[in-house]
Amino acid sequence: MGAEALSSALLALAVMLVTARIGGEVATRLRQPAVLGELGGGVLLGSLSLIGFTSLDWLRHDPLVALLAELGVVLLLFSVGLESTLGKMARVGRSAAAVALLGVVAPLGLGVGVGVLFGMDLLVCLFLGAILTATSVGITARVLRDLGAIDSPEARVILGAAVIDDVLGLGLLAVLTAVIAATEGGGSIQLGPVLGIGARAIGFLVGAVLVGVYVVPRVLARLATMRGTGVMLGFTLAFCFAMAWAAARAGLAPIVGAFAAGLVLEAAHYQPFAEREPRQVEDLVEPIVHMLAPIFFVRVGLEVDLAQLASPPVLALGLALTAAAVLGKAACMAGVLDRSIGRLTVAVGMVPRGEVGLVFAATGAGLLYQGRPLIDAPTFSAVVLMVMVTTAITPALLSWAMRRAR
Amino acid sequence: MGAEALSSALLALAVMLVTARIGGEVATRLRQPAVLGELGGGVLLGSLSLIGFTSLDWLRHDPLVALLAELGVVLLLFSVGLESTLGKMARVGRSAAAVALLGVVAPLGLGVGVGVLFGMDLLVCLFLGAILTATSVGITARVLRDLGAIDSPEARVILGAAVIDDVLGLGLLAVLTAVIAATEGGGSIQLGPVLGIGARAIGFLVGAVLVGVYVVPRVLARLATMRGTGVMLGFTLAFCFAMAWAAARAGLAPIVGAFAAGLVLEAAHYQPFAEREPRQVEDLVEPIVHMLAPIFFVRVGLEVDLAQLASPPVLALGLALTAAAVLGKAACMAGVLDRSIGRLTVAVGMVPRGEVGLVFAATGAGLLYQGRPLIDAPTFSAVVLMVMVTTAITPALLSWAMRRAR
Repeated sequence: MGAEALSSALLALAVMLVTARIGGEVATRLRQPAVLGELGGGVLLGSLSLIGFTSLDWLRHDPLVALLAELGVVLLLFSVGLESTLGKMARVGRSAAAVALLGVVAPLGLGVGVGVLFGMDLLVCLFLGAILTATSVGITARVLRDLGAIDSPEARVILGAAVIDDVLGLGLLAVLTAVIAATEGGGSIQLGPVLGIGARAIGFLVGAVLVGVYVVPRVLARLATMRGTGVMLGFTLAFCFAMAWAAARAGLAPIVGAFAAGLVLEAAHYQPFAEREPRQVEDLVEPIVHMLAPIFFVRVGLEVDLAQLASPPVLALGLALTAAAVLGKAACMAGVLDRSIGRLTVAVGMVPRGEVGLVFAATGAGLLYQGRPLIDAPTFSAVVLMVMVTTAITPALLSWAMRRAR
Repeated sequence: MGAEALSSALLALAVMLVTARIGGEVATRLRQPAVLGELGGGVLLGSLSLIGFTSLDWLRHDPLVALLAELGVVLLLFSVGLESTLGKMARVGRSAAAVALLGVVAPLGLGVGVGVLFGMDLLVCLFLGAILTATSVGITARVLRDLGAIDSPEARVILGAAVIDDVLGLGLLAVLTAVIAATEGGGSIQLGPVLGIGARAIGFLVGAVLVGVYVVPRVLARLATMRGTGVMLGFTLAFCFAMAWAAARAGLAPIVGAFAAGLVLEAAHYQPFAEREPRQVEDLVEPIVHMLAPIFFVRVGLEVDLAQLASPPVLALGLALTAAAVLGKAACMAGVLDRSIGRLTVAVGMVPRGEVGLVFAATGAGLLYQGRPLIDAPTFSAVVLMVMVTTAITPALLSWAMRRAR
């Protein structure tokens, strides 16, 4: 690697960590979750170019910064998974499934409605709807953790539902992409690949559970007999990265794999290590997450281009999409079957759209439909606005919903 | 960032962490430091292509893997610096300076001798000598830590001397590069840039000490009044990365900056945090180092191309360079002025050449001299052999020297 690339990455890390901690401090003093401050710090950092300070613009496009950010969110979801267990997930399973299903169908319908309202082609409408489906569980997980509620039944419903709607959303994306490719080529719809992606996704999740129940405890008991240092953390992290990689290979988001990896690892499995390693595995993963996750959140803030968002049509579409996104997930309230679980908290927790929504939008921008990009530049900006607003309002809304429930 | 790049990086992390831990386990059972096993694991992983398994060859050239490896060695040197203090360094300062000076002059002379023996041009000889000067403190630091001797006076002399000979070596590289550029262009030697680099390097080190003594304690006392989470670790890591970046900007290796950052941070400065954060800053940095440093050592192992090293002339030159490298640092024994410090341990600890030697060689391979690369491909391979052998023999030699001293 070039010395220049390394030196840029070092500067990026220093600048983004300081931004995150100052932003987090301001948010904490305003009684907001720290993550909102990290996002806000990123927006301010990114907006410096509007007042002529362009020396930090490269942060937005640097592939090494992007890698560190992605690793940060992978490790964040892993650590969130570590704090939950399969047993606890199963107990809220029915609610999570119902919440997920409603949380996909309602935003899809409302997204199509917004598209029709703005006079878009049917396929574009469907694509807009698909963009609205996937919950960005990273933000919600951070807020729940900042509020000390990551282990609540509400959190388990939200995280479980988010994993399911990620799977459903990615399936939808695969179907639409196949349909558009077929339309463009004039051929028929290819069902094979679409079903294939769906089958791989389901196979991955079933496989993860089987691995967690039958393989993980045996492997960990074996590893505990090893004498070297760092065995517990080394293999635990390797498992997280391998599962994230496997999820990506199965056509899912890597964070789904990382979350599943954390979910199947349970404190009981680490019992054989207790003698040699007094610290819990969560305590060892935590500092790594504290180093890398803020890079992700500052970077999401950097993505916001305030100048482009100021045009009235973009603003109107963006706000309509935001309303559809929020109302669509409000439907999730009806899916909370267990009366002891806070319905409002769950619905609000499903609101943020983040990295997955942006990935969908970028995929749409790369697809050609009738010779033009399916998602054009103004629509893309509107999607970014929706992602930004849903993400930004969630921390405050979620604190409010949780205080209300208590 | 493309999904493909992220997925590759995740796979690389999983494969390299498992390789490191299995290699570390084998080494531990053979009573060797774990780092030797990580290197050996890397060599085996890299040699899989010789038996036709080429699916992992990309690990060697992937820029994201390279970044993670470099961050790993930066954080390793930072954590090594954290375990030492300026006061302790000053106490061994005279010995460290004498050791460093002898450790530069002797290998330089011997390297030139090897070049003359193999009939090389004078400038190539001087360049070979310069390649032999810089100690790779990463390997030694890991071995000393694996042996529980990172806080010994010997370790402080070695680490102090390594920083000084890094500065001297980089100065030498700058002079030679300027001379060669001048020869090629037919012009005169440009003293300006050479002196400039030297001045910047010295300025950096003096600046780091001043920052450590006057600025760091005040800033940390201020930060301790902040209420957010992760403040201590966030700002500490930002300081490490900022200093590594500043070192790179001053023409030094980033690891020098990271080491200096760790050196000026002292446990006493963190006293104001004691109430809110019961864990020591070292304990928080350790898991991050455990995740990333093995990536560096496995990657160094991957660099070894066993096939290219098998040719007799390359082997002969490589072994001659290795002998010069080892004997050159043996001269360091005379520099240990304090009789209570183990002279053999210090000399052996200075032996490994690693990333800096490889950077020098790569720089030489990129310089044109009389129309050809100053360091040609066979010479480069021989340098790699020297780096590999000096690195590989150090752990065993150092354990032996330390047992002997006790």
